[in-house]
Amino acid sequence: MRLYPLPGRGLGSHGIYEELVLPGPRVRDLPYVAANMVSSVDGTASVSGKASGIGSQEDRRVMRVLRSLVDAVMVGAGTLRAEKLNLGLDEPSSRQPLAVIVGGAEDLDLERLVDSSQETLVVTPAETQGTRRSHAGSGEQEDGNPRRLRIPASGRGRVDLESLLKTLRADHGVQRLLVEGGPSLNRALLDANLLDELFLTLAPKLLPGCGPQIILGDPQRPDDSAAGLRLLSVHAAEDELFLRYRVHR
Amino acid sequence: MRLYPLPGRGLGSHGIYEELVLPGPRVRDLPYVAANMVSSVDGTASVSGKASGIGSQEDRRVMRVLRSLVDAVMVGAGTLRAEKLNLGLDEPSSRQPLAVIVGGAEDLDLERLVDSSQETLVVTPAETQGTRRSHAGSGEQEDGNPRRLRIPASGRGRVDLESLLKTLRADHGVQRLLVEGGPSLNRALLDANLLDELFLTLAPKLLPGCGPQIILGDPQRPDDSAAGLRLLSVHAAEDELFLRYRVHR
Repeated sequence: MRLYPLPGRGLGSHGIYEELVLPGPRVRDLPYVAANMVSSVDGTASVSGKASGIGSQEDRRVMRVLRSLVDAVMVGAGTLRAEKLNLGLDEPSSRQPLAVIVGGAEDLDLERLVDSSQETLVVTPAETQGTRRSHAGSGEQEDGNPRRLRIPASGRGRVDLESLLKTLRADHGVQRLLVEGGPSLNRALLDANLLDELFLTLAPKLLPGCGPQIILGDPQRPDDSAAGLRLLSVHAAEDELFLRYRVHR
Repeated sequence: MRLYPLPGRGLGSHGIYEELVLPGPRVRDLPYVAANMVSSVDGTASVSGKASGIGSQEDRRVMRVLRSLVDAVMVGAGTLRAEKLNLGLDEPSSRQPLAVIVGGAEDLDLERLVDSSQETLVVTPAETQGTRRSHAGSGEQEDGNPRRLRIPASGRGRVDLESLLKTLRADHGVQRLLVEGGPSLNRALLDANLLDELFLTLAPKLLPGCGPQIILGDPQRPDDSAAGLRLLSVHAAEDELFLRYRVHR
């Protein structure tokens, strides 16, 4: 049931977000970036490293609806290691979004993690390759699925996310990108001012002390990423709330 | 604007919760206990120890409406130290709820903290008094305002909250109690299975890493307090959401 904005005529029997059209890119050379996360009412985003037990079946369904609205789904390698994720849609006949795995070390067990039916990019910082190459550390291996994508590292030795997003836009036609965490990747996107929207499922639970919040706190820079939000919509399914916010940049 | 349950006729122009009647005690000798907290969308409940900067003016107004619905307002001494709180209502002519400050050490600077117009109890564990008395460590000093109330300590040297709540009910006629944190007091109430409801203001902000969540995580017992919630209502005022949940016991 959509609560806000109040439903007009013709809402019909569509499920949550099924009628949604995400905005296109706001900046010419970057995709539009939305994060989708689940947390308990007291702000816990994972239990034993896994988010999968927090939301309901409806949350899983909404996650797949959101994936169907974008060109690519991105996740941090740490989150992928914690739980075997399928980043695609349920129907194998549907056009699958590109899967993008960020920060995967060379030893990431791709065989275990990647669904062979989904085109997948594993993004690593160029510096970790050991050898410096003439093309300034950026490049892509064109050898099947998954493919490795090397992106210049930022100051802290991690993938420079703005470079990655520009590459996704320019070389892979990604106009809309859905990010599914984890908290470290969300924080890095917020720090780099690259996050446009947040979809948050608020699961009707209290899970005090079970895990991190949806966005990692950085003790070195506790409020560098403070940001205002604009409430775009509220849906409810039984006791679970589905919130959509625009991030003020 | 109330979003859920959907408003019927006659909602009129009342403010959030102004028409609310809180349930009476569910257990014969305990008050009905509701917590009221504010957090950012990413689950941060205070910045530099203070919750006062997170919510809007509307949140402050709602806080006072909720206080007007109860017989007593309770807060942990740590939260009171962090920010000078007025636990009462705005109109001095209104009947003020009893203020209850839990876990205050003997050296708590009451002069600074207590509004002399509001009846106040400062509750300390009996063990910290140094002298053991014949009335088994429980007792009250009847010398003006604020008064000291000594309650037997629980195993961990803190005020036994069930004893406190029974005393508030039996000796002070408290049928409905509002708890305003902090996270440690909320956790202790949840651990003791004493929390009936949660009012949560979800402020339209991201504040990653700025402070604790609304309920303290206890690394020793990470999920002892996991609890299910039932969504009772949703209000929105601009981008801020006002959520009310029943705690499953």
